[in-house]
Amino acid sequence: MHPFARASQALQDVRQPGFETVNLQDELRAIVGANNVIAGADADPYLVDWRGRYKGRAQAVVRPGNTEEVATVMRLCHQHKTPVVTQGGNTGLCGGATLDESGDAIVLSLSRLNTIRAIDIDNDTLVVDAGCTLSTVQEAARNVGRLFPLSLAAEGTCTIGGNLATNAGGTQVLRYGNARDLTLGLEVVTPEGDIWHGLRGLRKDNTGYDLRDLFIGSEGTLGIITGATLKLYPRPAAQRTAMLALDSLDNAIRLLAHAKSGFGPSLTAFEVMAGSVLHDVVRLFPPQRLPFEGPSGEAPYFALLELSDMEGEAHAQAQFETVLGAAMEDGLVLDAAIAENLTQSKAFWHLRESVPLAEANPGKSIKHDVSVPISAIAEFVSAADAALKACFPTMSTIVFGHLGDGNVHYNVSRGADQTEEQVVALTKEVYAIVHDIAHRLGGSISAEHGIGQHKRDELPRYKHAVELRLMRQIKTALDPHNLMNPGKVLPQADAR
Amino acid sequence: MHPFARASQALQDVRQPGFETVNLQDELRAIVGANNVIAGADADPYLVDWRGRYKGRAQAVVRPGNTEEVATVMRLCHQHKTPVVTQGGNTGLCGGATLDESGDAIVLSLSRLNTIRAIDIDNDTLVVDAGCTLSTVQEAARNVGRLFPLSLAAEGTCTIGGNLATNAGGTQVLRYGNARDLTLGLEVVTPEGDIWHGLRGLRKDNTGYDLRDLFIGSEGTLGIITGATLKLYPRPAAQRTAMLALDSLDNAIRLLAHAKSGFGPSLTAFEVMAGSVLHDVVRLFPPQRLPFEGPSGEAPYFALLELSDMEGEAHAQAQFETVLGAAMEDGLVLDAAIAENLTQSKAFWHLRESVPLAEANPGKSIKHDVSVPISAIAEFVSAADAALKACFPTMSTIVFGHLGDGNVHYNVSRGADQTEEQVVALTKEVYAIVHDIAHRLGGSISAEHGIGQHKRDELPRYKHAVELRLMRQIKTALDPHNLMNPGKVLPQADAR
Repeated sequence: MHPFARASQALQDVRQPGFETVNLQDELRAIVGANNVIAGADADPYLVDWRGRYKGRAQAVVRPGNTEEVATVMRLCHQHKTPVVTQGGNTGLCGGATLDESGDAIVLSLSRLNTIRAIDIDNDTLVVDAGCTLSTVQEAARNVGRLFPLSLAAEGTCTIGGNLATNAGGTQVLRYGNARDLTLGLEVVTPEGDIWHGLRGLRKDNTGYDLRDLFIGSEGTLGIITGATLKLYPRPAAQRTAMLALDSLDNAIRLLAHAKSGFGPSLTAFEVMAGSVLHDVVRLFPPQRLPFEGPSGEAPYFALLELSDMEGEAHAQAQFETVLGAAMEDGLVLDAAIAENLTQSKAFWHLRESVPLAEANPGKSIKHDVSVPISAIAEFVSAADAALKACFPTMSTIVFGHLGDGNVHYNVSRGADQTEEQVVALTKEVYAIVHDIAHRLGGSISAEHGIGQHKRDELPRYKHAVELRLMRQIKTALDPHNLMNPGKVLPQADAR
Repeated sequence: MHPFARASQALQDVRQPGFETVNLQDELRAIVGANNVIAGADADPYLVDWRGRYKGRAQAVVRPGNTEEVATVMRLCHQHKTPVVTQGGNTGLCGGATLDESGDAIVLSLSRLNTIRAIDIDNDTLVVDAGCTLSTVQEAARNVGRLFPLSLAAEGTCTIGGNLATNAGGTQVLRYGNARDLTLGLEVVTPEGDIWHGLRGLRKDNTGYDLRDLFIGSEGTLGIITGATLKLYPRPAAQRTAMLALDSLDNAIRLLAHAKSGFGPSLTAFEVMAGSVLHDVVRLFPPQRLPFEGPSGEAPYFALLELSDMEGEAHAQAQFETVLGAAMEDGLVLDAAIAENLTQSKAFWHLRESVPLAEANPGKSIKHDVSVPISAIAEFVSAADAALKACFPTMSTIVFGHLGDGNVHYNVSRGADQTEEQVVALTKEVYAIVHDIAHRLGGSISAEHGIGQHKRDELPRYKHAVELRLMRQIKTALDPHNLMNPGKVLPQADAR
């Protein structure tokens, strides 16, 4: 950018002294090098989320090259009281990594912190930079014959730092837990620009408060996660996948209990999809097809079940036949299709992964990411269906999600009599209906996507006042100047 | 107690106005009933830890009957600025539930909060009062055909609230994690006497800061855990136990890797004991005996390995033979004794559980509860052995512990030329040697027992200053008057 252009842009911005903007950028360049302070049009990709729903403005985009540089940048921002929005792969769904319109903040991109720092096979741990993509981490584990089980659709782009900041979920939570459960240690830069060296690789450490789990899931509002020590697992010797046709959500719950008891920890995924959305997938994305002929293909629900066996193909097959055979005999399952090879298994997963694309097809829908106790899933769906039918009789609903975790993606689609704009305008009203029901059943309004700015102002309706006060006390104690990702997670009234 | 006696006792205590003591006790009686405010000699059992190492004085011992009463007591204490030491089963090892000598504080015993509140089988969760003993919780799970896997020596006496306050470990951590990993939700009374209703039974909930894991392991210094929602697991269909004779700690590590890979999540325990201490067990506690004849019985190390199989006896047996057979062929194991029935299995576990008693026999020893990365265990033991041999040539060392978690109980015993008093006097010096080595190897000075008052003043030596500052910021934010278990966990200089 021409110096004059920059100065004139700064002068146009009455919210901040023009010369300070120039000085901050110069100071940032002195820390990370001129190439790694991005301004002007080059900064645009960092200022909007990948779905284009949130846009903001920044003083600069900074890309430090290591933890020390992150700390130095943070010290500078602390000195200038400049807010910092940390960004990983920018794949979030709640606007948690997008700035506000003020232009006061900087984007701190961790994309250059992308080294696998250490692997300890005997300890089954991996130490990584926060900016490594999730697939880089998975691959590093695979290269030493181990499994890093976190897995989700954005894994080629999202970073492990972002996964930790949002406590990401995905398809293997049933067996291995969320990102939090896969982490032993963290390295964090504090709002003052200090480095907390907490990269411990210990399964047991009871020496004080659990800072690790406080930073995990705090969406960049308490500090900057720059590195992590992650757990590795043995790779399964064999995997089996099945699609099961089910006549009700109640039977899906019963089948889940049956599978958990029969397979134990070998059950690594249990996904459920409404039949209607699978028919949309098949219609929209040929040559995909359901692995069922005749009436089974018309079932109202389908489950995708994955077994990860430590022994081998023969044992996996025998296990599958025993447990699923019993489920069929007990009438829990209408029909079962067992993948006979990796290609078929991938085809089953492809059906599941195509669901979000299919339900996006008729235009904007109103999406939910709720969780409820597994025992309340069927009640949640029938209560939400009934309440919406009463208010919006032409709109239709779709259920799919991680049933094994109680996590339901419940989407409400446009009626034939509605325009897209009308659907968007109803979002708040539909949210209130669906979230109220989830809340009444002991559920959560954000199972795995986080709060960001998207659901921030809904928190006071669902979060106990004492809990919000505790959160605010912690935020104020650790970040008294509200420099870390301001306007995220904590409701505005609570964000000082 | 005669009213005059109480008044005269209060007048003797120059540190507080006599009448206020009387008033506080009266006010407490009005909340919990006269029978549940204990003073005088009846209070003595609450004022000393079970090993008799820590003694304190209290204004009163209060036993509220439910969460509301806990909150009302806490509001009263907040008003009077009276410190509160929460007590469960009083089985801690670090003086975390024992008061100081000032007599300022009250003991808040949760023993009357002992109800199993709810069981949700489909959701695999259990909601319990904090004062339930661990064995009560285990039994409630067993009664509905489920497993609550936390298991430790004090389980008949310790309470789940204490387990959570200290993030207890035990023998099943390798597979199921610490107390923290087994918990989904908490109910907590804050220092102001508010109740945080956080008893969520959700596997996924990303709606704000992880307060649950902050309270877990904070040893009563941030609030009072009054209830918890716990995870249940399927009960294994069969279990197998083996004792294995090993020629080195290195081979124990290799065997652990082999067993993790071969058994996967069915490996539920992997304990290691030095041969010398098992010989002590056999000598001191007849008719216990080692399950080995000849040279195998003289091995320097033994492992106790447990397999929990979801399929049944035949599969467990086949698995055991395959995986342990391969270990013997590879020379990892000198000899193996497989329990043929439950009685033999219990006998093997009894050997393990007798180790602490045996090593207490020659008089007071200096005990450690360290963890290091599993890859560093052998180096830790040889370095600590060498350093101690150089300083204290007549003292001997014993290794046993939860090898699968990297958790080593490393105990240093009296030399023939030393008195018990001399050993006790050396504690600080020996601690420094052993803890410095664990720390250098990336380890922890308290793997599972916590900090309490026992290891509090060691923290500044081993804890990063930034981490201590973050802990202090949180403590000050949540408990600005330092009412919750003062003098515990945070080093004195840091405790305001």
